[in-house]
Amino acid sequence: MRSFASDNNSGVHPEVLQAIVEANEGHAIGYGDDRWTERAKELIRKEFGEDTYAFFCFSGTAANIFAVASVLKPYECVLTSSIGHIHRDENGAPERILSCKIVGIESADGKITTEALSRFLSWKNSPHTASPRVVSITQATELGLLYTPSEIRELSQFCREHDLLLHMDGARISNAAVAQGLSLREATRDLGVDILCLGGTKNGLMGAEAVLFFGEGMKGWADRIQKQCLQLASKMRFLSAQMIAFMSNNLWARNAEHSNRMAALLVEELQEVKGVKIPRPVEANIVFLALPPEIISELKQTHFFYASPQGEARLVTSFDTSDEDVRAFTQEVKRLMRR
Amino acid sequence: MRSFASDNNSGVHPEVLQAIVEANEGHAIGYGDDRWTERAKELIRKEFGEDTYAFFCFSGTAANIFAVASVLKPYECVLTSSIGHIHRDENGAPERILSCKIVGIESADGKITTEALSRFLSWKNSPHTASPRVVSITQATELGLLYTPSEIRELSQFCREHDLLLHMDGARISNAAVAQGLSLREATRDLGVDILCLGGTKNGLMGAEAVLFFGEGMKGWADRIQKQCLQLASKMRFLSAQMIAFMSNNLWARNAEHSNRMAALLVEELQEVKGVKIPRPVEANIVFLALPPEIISELKQTHFFYASPQGEARLVTSFDTSDEDVRAFTQEVKRLMRR
Amino acid sequence: MRSFASDNNSGVHPEVLQAIVEANEGHAIGYGDDRWTERAKELIRKEFGEDTYAFFCFSGTAANIFAVASVLKPYECVLTSSIGHIHRDENGAPERILSCKIVGIESADGKITTEALSRFLSWKNSPHTASPRVVSITQATELGLLYTPSEIRELSQFCREHDLLLHMDGARISNAAVAQGLSLREATRDLGVDILCLGGTKNGLMGAEAVLFFGEGMKGWADRIQKQCLQLASKMRFLSAQMIAFMSNNLWARNAEHSNRMAALLVEELQEVKGVKIPRPVEANIVFLALPPEIISELKQTHFFYASPQGEARLVTSFDTSDEDVRAFTQEVKRLMRR
Amino acid sequence: MRSFASDNNSGVHPEVLQAIVEANEGHAIGYGDDRWTERAKELIRKEFGEDTYAFFCFSGTAANIFAVASVLKPYECVLTSSIGHIHRDENGAPERILSCKIVGIESADGKITTEALSRFLSWKNSPHTASPRVVSITQATELGLLYTPSEIRELSQFCREHDLLLHMDGARISNAAVAQGLSLREATRDLGVDILCLGGTKNGLMGAEAVLFFGEGMKGWADRIQKQCLQLASKMRFLSAQMIAFMSNNLWARNAEHSNRMAALLVEELQEVKGVKIPRPVEANIVFLALPPEIISELKQTHFFYASPQGEARLVTSFDTSDEDVRAFTQEVKRLMRR
Repeated sequence: MRSFASDNNSGVHPEVLQAIVEANEGHAIGYGDDRWTERAKELIRKEFGEDTYAFFCFSGTAANIFAVASVLKPYECVLTSSIGHIHRDENGAPERILSCKIVGIESADGKITTEALSRFLSWKNSPHTASPRVVSITQATELGLLYTPSEIRELSQFCREHDLLLHMDGARISNAAVAQGLSLREATRDLGVDILCLGGTKNGLMGAEAVLFFGEGMKGWADRIQKQCLQLASKMRFLSAQMIAFMSNNLWARNAEHSNRMAALLVEELQEVKGVKIPRPVEANIVFLALPPEIISELKQTHFFYASPQGEARLVTSFDTSDEDVRAFTQEVKRLMRR
Repeated sequence: MRSFASDNNSGVHPEVLQAIVEANEGHAIGYGDDRWTERAKELIRKEFGEDTYAFFCFSGTAANIFAVASVLKPYECVLTSSIGHIHRDENGAPERILSCKIVGIESADGKITTEALSRFLSWKNSPHTASPRVVSITQATELGLLYTPSEIRELSQFCREHDLLLHMDGARISNAAVAQGLSLREATRDLGVDILCLGGTKNGLMGAEAVLFFGEGMKGWADRIQKQCLQLASKMRFLSAQMIAFMSNNLWARNAEHSNRMAALLVEELQEVKGVKIPRPVEANIVFLALPPEIISELKQTHFFYASPQGEARLVTSFDTSDEDVRAFTQEVKRLMRR
Repeated sequence: MRSFASDNNSGVHPEVLQAIVEANEGHAIGYGDDRWTERAKELIRKEFGEDTYAFFCFSGTAANIFAVASVLKPYECVLTSSIGHIHRDENGAPERILSCKIVGIESADGKITTEALSRFLSWKNSPHTASPRVVSITQATELGLLYTPSEIRELSQFCREHDLLLHMDGARISNAAVAQGLSLREATRDLGVDILCLGGTKNGLMGAEAVLFFGEGMKGWADRIQKQCLQLASKMRFLSAQMIAFMSNNLWARNAEHSNRMAALLVEELQEVKGVKIPRPVEANIVFLALPPEIISELKQTHFFYASPQGEARLVTSFDTSDEDVRAFTQEVKRLMRR
Repeated sequence: MRSFASDNNSGVHPEVLQAIVEANEGHAIGYGDDRWTERAKELIRKEFGEDTYAFFCFSGTAANIFAVASVLKPYECVLTSSIGHIHRDENGAPERILSCKIVGIESADGKITTEALSRFLSWKNSPHTASPRVVSITQATELGLLYTPSEIRELSQFCREHDLLLHMDGARISNAAVAQGLSLREATRDLGVDILCLGGTKNGLMGAEAVLFFGEGMKGWADRIQKQCLQLASKMRFLSAQMIAFMSNNLWARNAEHSNRMAALLVEELQEVKGVKIPRPVEANIVFLALPPEIISELKQTHFFYASPQGEARLVTSFDTSDEDVRAFTQEVKRLMRR
């Protein structure tokens, strides 16, 4: 059964698998002191700048936590959206591991604004409140929207003015960058992002993410806490090999472009269908569909996807979603809606 | 200089001081195994019911944390108001000590509704989200408003239906109960509250709070974690003596009634003054005044109180606020406003 | 350069890589709800008993923490050896994530005895001490020694009598079981182990460990905290595929047998060499060699391995250590010692 | 019934109670911004040096945790004795609140040596181990022994050489200083102690301790985490008033001298009694007595004290132990031993 449940329902891109196979050669020192890790970091520095410090993690949740744990002092807190992955979708892991407050700010579209952040500036120097230190945004957002370059620039400038760090959960940053016609660096560091979680798993890797600190001053005690955050893989070369493939021959962009295209195709096929609503702009690889609840139940017979009780289906496309996948799905929707 | 900054700027009620002096007699076993502690617990059981389990704490922040820590498993979370003391005003202590998520729900008046809580029910059984277990309300609220008895009953019924516990931060529960013409029990347990932080410090004690679990099933592992939460006083008898005085001869009610009366007097004196606005109902012992910023600066020459940058002064009355205090303050406001 | 630094310097066994390649087929629901995970759990239940609850983790450190986090209440603690991996080698991760005490008990050979554990029984019910709940042993130990079956049985009986759980860090349990001529089950569950971290990465996997709870009552809240402990892989099938290979065709035993044999060969070749001492029994796949410090420096020109400043080299063999590796190393030692 | 169970079974010294009564005057700003707190800090600076930063805490456990929390980064750990209060007697509070490792080092007499500390230096810079940062000693120790001035000097020099901080849990530092004929400063800061928990509660206060950082560079983020550690008393003046009395007219020394004298009297009266052994030197105010178990049971009919199952009674004297208390106890021992 084909799945639109998440881009993590996809498999591994053949180039990535090939890189893993090739890394299985001889002995290599553990914990990252190997030539694949060196090479992956080199490719990352080439894209993001020489003073980029990269660390590889097993999962996106882990990457977010490792990123923030590297820079947060025990009395500091994170400001994020109330639908931010780090606030809502990580099972309390951030509080458990960081022992710090994650503040989820409510907003209509799930994006944070400087106006909302301003309400927390008085927390900075009071003995009664946690001190905001990290602003965390997700790009593309959990609703598949994009922060525009100028929105990110405004946030990063606000952060600089108020001694805050801008962290980007980039689980789908490839999709965002490609959609905006930007390079990875242009979509992140050049807009003032300080710390990036560069998502790989949702975009063709088997399971590997990178945490990037832009500038030596940004990495806090990252060097010291990778094992503490459970991210110091003993056979690190097999994570690094995945990142090498990701950063080679534009694989990240090819994969993201494809999945974005599949999302666009979903919209194209369904936007005219009577009774189907697309309640939110589709800016990356997530499509929400408002459908009658009974249609949703029937669709689930043939496809994996998640839907809210109110009848809003969330469809996520991935590098291995095919035109046929999309058409099979949209034809089924149309068939059901016609009845 | 007289203070309206907080009810914790007050001193100790003479009956409380007398109780402390009387407890200073001979040797007593440490950590609560003494006759004053036994007596204080007895008085509390008399008021709240035989199956009430009381623990004494040094401060209100500590009481909230000890209360929640007693019942929260590591994967569970607390739902509270975004202005809830446990979320906003405790310097990240809950996350630091509990390592659990505190979710601050935004609302216009700072009160929580079952409607807002409903949005979090889907978190209960997902492997991706922290599991809501405790709903925490503050009575009177941080803005001096009261949850009505029927509002609390509705919340507690919702909690029962959804396997949640209702915790009340009762730093000012005496003021609320007195304002509603209820006994302490009627204002809390009888409305379905499961765990109460019974505030003492803000209402005439030197520094003592009680955490009450209503029913043996409610107290979780409270017996085991009092020292871990830094609340196992070695000379416990001096906390207990304060609670004895508090629960004797209706001291809690006499003190709260007085401070509520002083708040009412502030309103009475100022509500007709041109240029002065009282933006929120005054339901207990907190009065907000909207004043021109320059008036606020001048008022601060003669009185302690806090004000927002927007020119909203927060005045809190206490058991030792006198009629003269109120009149001196209101006359100064009037004098300044007349100019 | 060939490495004796650790069994995690080895690569991935071809059968494991093949299993990964085969799992890369089509879409699969994330987070473990896939057929590979189902199959891997089935194989584990077949070996360890139907009421075995298995969870897959990214690393050995993570497995230990997830195992303990599943059963430890916030006021409980772990008793282990002062050289136990969970105490000494995990960068403070257990305390950071569990927020619980890990007590490292000192002993001459790094093994725990019931006599040593007895000293902590009075901690069980005191309000002043953390309450021991988990006893954690490593098999084979960090020094390459084995707890005998009767030693483990004695420990597990002690645990039963005193309401403690016996956790085994089995990063090298395959090596131990093979050395003792036991099946995995006979070497663990049948001796009274309650929770097993079944190590895979050091024994031919790319990176996968299993946490096994023997009996439903043992698993605590494991189901609820896998993501919180950062172990809920989105593309779980690729961890599970590794475990399938591990449990199929006795791969775990073939690999462990080989690495044990290589360790024995090291001993055989070196025990008669003048000036070389083997200070500890070699019972699994770790060999300590006492060598003159200057010899150690020269050996490091041709081989990776760790050595203490006092001149004790630690050599670990793995599934892909070859006879030639061993002979090249031992000949170099002999050559250097002859000079 | 008179108690030798602990010096915290004593009451409050009259001069302390008087200071509390006197502080109950008018309104005072909360959280330490009051004149009593200012005065107490001034007295402390006068004794310990102008660059001493003092913070007041509710209890000794809290003081230890606040002290260490102020300087420990999330990846650092504490080295202490295996019988150190911070390791053994605080119910897991340090790990719960700090989320950091506390390493308890075993030794014959419960004191730490530089030799033992040396074993942990390799932990300092490894990615696999927690990084030692604080060495914590208790003076007088939990067994009533004293570190000599030269022992402390040796430890503090070791700390300086290895980038460690020396923390002293001085719950009974008054007893130690008086026994060594030293001022408080001479017994602590002048020997190289960096952070002192100055115990008050066990020496005549109602409940107040001070954490002192010697030098601005030592206080870490203490200013920012007092509320997070639950130690920001709203009515701080009543803690401060106790510290004023403590530091005035040598009250700390008068009280400690008296309790030490009572311990000496216990020894004097009992050392010649046949069948009674005093197994450890008595250097401050704790006396251990080895007695036949049946004698211990009978003694407990008339006196509070703790005893090990092996028949070792621990007696602690306090400022309000009287000659009569001692004689009544010793006569009872003699009477029982004569039978």
